[in-house]
Amino acid sequence: MTASCLSHLECSRCSMTYETSLEKHLCSCGAPLLARYDMKKLARLKKETLNARAPSLWRYREFLPIISDDNIITLGEPITPIISMQEIGLRLGMKNLWIKDEGILPTGTFKCRGATVGVSKAKELGVETLIMPTNGNAGAAWAVYSARAGINAYVVMPEDAPAITRNECYVAGAYLYLVHGLISDAGKIVNRAVESHGWYDASTLKEPYRIEGKKTMIMEILEQLNWDVPDVIVYPTGGGVGIIGIYKGLCELKEIGWINKKMPRLVSVQSTGCAPIVKAWQEGKMESEPWQHATTIAFGINVPKALGDFLILDAIYKTNGCAIAIEDHEILKAQASLAKYEGIYVCPEGAATLAATISLLEQSWLLPNEKVVLLNTGTGLIYPDTVHVRVTTLKPEEDVPG
Amino acid sequence: MTASCLSHLECSRCSMTYETSLEKHLCSCGAPLLARYDMKKLARLKKETLNARAPSLWRYREFLPIISDDNIITLGEPITPIISMQEIGLRLGMKNLWIKDEGILPTGTFKCRGATVGVSKAKELGVETLIMPTNGNAGAAWAVYSARAGINAYVVMPEDAPAITRNECYVAGAYLYLVHGLISDAGKIVNRAVESHGWYDASTLKEPYRIEGKKTMIMEILEQLNWDVPDVIVYPTGGGVGIIGIYKGLCELKEIGWINKKMPRLVSVQSTGCAPIVKAWQEGKMESEPWQHATTIAFGINVPKALGDFLILDAIYKTNGCAIAIEDHEILKAQASLAKYEGIYVCPEGAATLAATISLLEQSWLLPNEKVVLLNTGTGLIYPDTVHVRVTTLKPEEDVPG
Repeated sequence: MTASCLSHLECSRCSMTYETSLEKHLCSCGAPLLARYDMKKLARLKKETLNARAPSLWRYREFLPIISDDNIITLGEPITPIISMQEIGLRLGMKNLWIKDEGILPTGTFKCRGATVGVSKAKELGVETLIMPTNGNAGAAWAVYSARAGINAYVVMPEDAPAITRNECYVAGAYLYLVHGLISDAGKIVNRAVESHGWYDASTLKEPYRIEGKKTMIMEILEQLNWDVPDVIVYPTGGGVGIIGIYKGLCELKEIGWINKKMPRLVSVQSTGCAPIVKAWQEGKMESEPWQHATTIAFGINVPKALGDFLILDAIYKTNGCAIAIEDHEILKAQASLAKYEGIYVCPEGAATLAATISLLEQSWLLPNEKVVLLNTGTGLIYPDTVHVRVTTLKPEEDVPG
Repeated sequence: MTASCLSHLECSRCSMTYETSLEKHLCSCGAPLLARYDMKKLARLKKETLNARAPSLWRYREFLPIISDDNIITLGEPITPIISMQEIGLRLGMKNLWIKDEGILPTGTFKCRGATVGVSKAKELGVETLIMPTNGNAGAAWAVYSARAGINAYVVMPEDAPAITRNECYVAGAYLYLVHGLISDAGKIVNRAVESHGWYDASTLKEPYRIEGKKTMIMEILEQLNWDVPDVIVYPTGGGVGIIGIYKGLCELKEIGWINKKMPRLVSVQSTGCAPIVKAWQEGKMESEPWQHATTIAFGINVPKALGDFLILDAIYKTNGCAIAIEDHEILKAQASLAKYEGIYVCPEGAATLAATISLLEQSWLLPNEKVVLLNTGTGLIYPDTVHVRVTTLKPEEDVPG
C-alpha cells in the first residue's frame, strides 16, 4: 500500500530536517526544502520491476512522495516519447541527437509532472485551497489537477502570459487573476494572499513536491535509453525546477547504483532577453541577480530571479555543464526547423534547446558523436503567435497552383 | 521483419479485391476500399505477446498495413489514457463512465493515428506529394507526419477551421490553402488537383490506410479494460473514419477470438447544426443526404455528407447503437463540466459525447450501471474561442480578493 520510500524533508541550504506529515514550505532559513527518501529501502528495488508497470511516471512511485495510492490525482500522464532527430542530426553531423517531447502531456506541457505529484501531495496533506504565481503553463496544470482533486486553486499570472493558458485555468474553475507586471509581481501578490488567508503556497520551490514530479523526466530518459547515461541534456530554464529535479534524480539513481559514476553535462538554456543564470554562470557565481527589463517570446523562461538559482548553478557546476543564452529570432528559426524536418511542433522554450545545441556544437563544447537529449517542455499549440501564417484563400471554383 | 498480416484491399460495397503493392484509392464502383488481413496468420498471435511491447499503437503492427518497419513514420504516439470519470459519474449516478483522452497525441488530436499509419503507408508506396481536404485537425496531423517522412503535403481547409491548425500545417512546411466554403468545397478543389497533377489523394476514405490507424483506438480500449468489452462507446462523428475503424477492429478481433460475441453499442454523436447521420438513422436509411447550411462550433464534425456514411450507419445498425444530435450550447456546457469536475480540457467534439451520454441516460437508452466509454478526439487547446475567459487584472500592489 505504501510504496513510497519518503523519509523526511531537508533544507537545500542548511540541511535542517523536517517531517513530512505536515504542510511545510520553506526552511526557517528561507531556502527550499527537498524530499529525502530511505535510500536503503530504495536500493532494494530492482530496475526490472519497472518493466511490468503501466507506462506513466507513477511507475516510479517508490521515488515519489505520495504515501497512499488513494491520494494520487492523475490524468493518465503517458511516458513521453524520446524521438530520434535523424534529419536535423544529419544536417548538423550529429548521430545521436534526441528530443524528449513533453508537449504530449495532458495540459500540453511538462508542468503536468509537477502538478500530478504536487496536487496529489497537497490532497494527502488535506489542503483545501492553494495559490500560485505562474507564467501560464504551471498555473494551467495545477488548475486542472486541482479541479480533479476538488481543491480550490487561485492562479495569478502576468497579463502577457500565453492567452490559452488563461482558458485552461478558467475552464477548470480556478480563481484566475492577471497582473500588470512580471511573474515576480505575481509572486508578491501570492505572498500577501498566503499571509492573509493561510492558503497553501504552491509557488515554485515553496512547496517541496513539485520537483519530485519533474525528477521523473530523467528516470524516463534513462529507462528509454536502457540506462545508458547520455553525454548532455539541454534544458530551457526559467524557475529551474526541471533541471534541479533532473540533477536530484541523477544523484538518487547513482546512490542506489542504477547508474554509474558518469553524469550527463546539464545545459541551462535561457533567452538573451532574460538570462540571469547564464550571467551568473559566466561570472562563476553561486547565485544570480534579478534580471532587469526581462522580456522574451519564450514566456515560460521569463523569470528574472529564480528562488532556486543556487541549486540550478550547483547542478551545472557539478556536472561540468554550462549555461547559454539564445536570441529570440534564433528560437523561432529552431522552432520552424523542428517542425519542417522532424514533424515536431514545439513551444519556443523547447526550440531554444535546439538553437543552443547548434551554438554549442559550433563552439566545440559539444562533439558531433556525443549523445545529446533536448527537452521540449511543451507543445507549440499554446503559442499561436510564434507562427506567422501566410496563406492564400481560394474560392471553391479556384485551383491549387501546381 | 514483416510483422504485418496485410493481405489485400476489398471494396466496402461490391467486395471487388485489389492488391496492396500499388497505390490504390477508391474501387472502380466508387466506394472506399478496406484493408484485409490474413486472418489465419493473425489468429496465431496471442494477446499476451502484446504485454512486452512498447506502449504505442505500433504494438498492434500485425493488424496494421506497413510491410517494412523502416517505413514507419512515428512521433512516439503514446497509448492514450482511459480515465475514470468518478465525479461526473457520481452526479449522473453512473458507476462505470470512462473517457479515452486522444488529446494527448502529438498534434493534439486522434487524427495522429490515421496520419502515422497513412503517411507510413504512403512512404512505403513511394508517394512524393499528397493532398487532402480537412476541417483542420487531420490536415495538421498529415502535415507534420509528411514533414517527417519528407513527403510534400498540400492541405486545403475551410477558412472557418480552427486557426491553430493553420499554424501546425504552415510551420511543418505544408502547402496550405484556405477555401471560402465548407470541407465539401475543399474536397472539390482537391479532386481537381489530383486529376491535374496526379498527387496522392489522402482525402477521408479515399486512401484505405488511415482507417487502420483509427482502428487502434478500440484495440487500446479493450486492452486497457482487460479485454472486457464495454456496453457502449460514444463517438463524435464527422467523416466517420473513427467509428468505421472501431467497428472494423471489433470485427477483426471477434474473428480471431480475442473477444466474444458481445459488441459494444456504437453511438454516433453529431451537432444539431450538421446531423446528416442522425437524420438518416432516424429515418432508418442506409445512406445520408447532404446537410444544408451546415454549421457548428464543433468544427471537426461539420461534415455535410460523409463518403463512408453507409459504413457508419452499418456500424450503428449492426451493434444496436444509435445516432444523436446535440445543441452547441449543450456541448459548451459539457466542455466546462469535464474541465471543472474531472480536470480534462476537451475539444467541443469530445464534449459532445458527454452531452449525448446525459441525453441517452435521460431517455433510458443507456442504463446507469452500463460500462460506457466516451471518445475525446482532441485537446481543448486548439479551440480557444470556445472558452470566454472573464478575468480581473491586478496592479502589483493590489490584492487577490479573499
